[in-house]
Amino acid sequence: MPVFSERLQTLEARHGVAIPLNRGQELVVVNTHGNQAIDTWALNRQNPDEFMSMEHSRSRLSRVVPRVGDTLVSNRRAPILTLSDDTSPGVHDTLLCACSPEIYRELGCEEGHRSCEGNFHEALAAIGLRLGCTPAPLNLFMNVAVGSENEVIRAAPVSKPGDLVRLRADMDVVMVLSACPQDVTPINGDDCTPREIQYAVV
Amino acid sequence: MPVFSERLQTLEARHGVAIPLNRGQELVVVNTHGNQAIDTWALNRQNPDEFMSMEHSRSRLSRVVPRVGDTLVSNRRAPILTLSDDTSPGVHDTLLCACSPEIYRELGCEEGHRSCEGNFHEALAAIGLRLGCTPAPLNLFMNVAVGSENEVIRAAPVSKPGDLVRLRADMDVVMVLSACPQDVTPINGDDCTPREIQYAVV
Repeated sequence: MPVFSERLQTLEARHGVAIPLNRGQELVVVNTHGNQAIDTWALNRQNPDEFMSMEHSRSRLSRVVPRVGDTLVSNRRAPILTLSDDTSPGVHDTLLCACSPEIYRELGCEEGHRSCEGNFHEALAAIGLRLGCTPAPLNLFMNVAVGSENEVIRAAPVSKPGDLVRLRADMDVVMVLSACPQDVTPINGDDCTPREIQYAVV
Repeated sequence: MPVFSERLQTLEARHGVAIPLNRGQELVVVNTHGNQAIDTWALNRQNPDEFMSMEHSRSRLSRVVPRVGDTLVSNRRAPILTLSDDTSPGVHDTLLCACSPEIYRELGCEEGHRSCEGNFHEALAAIGLRLGCTPAPLNLFMNVAVGSENEVIRAAPVSKPGDLVRLRADMDVVMVLSACPQDVTPINGDDCTPREIQYAVV
């Protein structure tokens, strides 16, 4: 068993959680059932206006999707999070916004459908934080590819049950995880069923 | 001569400008010398916390780079700007952040090097606006491709002198244009020389 197994906590399907990490600590994120996309944010704990930025990270890394060893940077171009391990095939997304009430309205869902954007702000509020915007998330395990015609191709995750990533904090951060509530499109698996995940601080 | 030629104004090399547009008006942006990348933003004039969002537009369009007829959306997923014409080969970028003081520091430039991020806030301040963040810009004429290994490939613009795009406002907006001051990498042409551009409201 991995050394962190006793510390694993469960994040309920369709919900979010804010997790403070000190610089140097790692967050292990386990895709318990293998099919779950997990929207992920990191904010500077001393100044939440500084946050992990996908457009700055793509610029810094010259890569659309980070690989093991890559350090993502903040909107001030400071190292904030390093992908220190990944037992999945490494298919993640940096291109798409978090799902939001507006998306579920477009999809014809009832008002009040949970969303990653809602989870982000709810999780921050639970620890007394507020941010006026929703940064573009790192969408772990979310299967999004760019086609030869520049098209965005969405598909079910290719990760297996128990696949995990480890994320090392490169400054004192608050991380937010959202187990994506999408149940209309197959982004959380072909059965369109959002599921719980697990995580541990190590 | 195009009907808007009398209305053309010049945006000095390395500088930015904020341009209010009413819903339905169009902004013509002319790449006068053909080599110039132009960072472009649109903000809801009634509520600048709503702004054109690259990650929402990629999600809505299922395309990385907009084509003629495509409508970009805001961070609230509302139509904000339509690419109504484009005489260039259509190579633009939505992936990379605006250049910033931090980038020029990394590149070894002297402090005070102008940047698109600085131009954005300077242009807003000139009309009495302030935004606490720098949204990811639509980088017109900026030649950025995604390779088969998900790598971000930067190259000199493929546009010709006089190539233009037309952008139609789908709500009352403030647009910001920045003639990118990048003079270290060839993103503004192989001679690394930022140049002025022209624009007209029609």
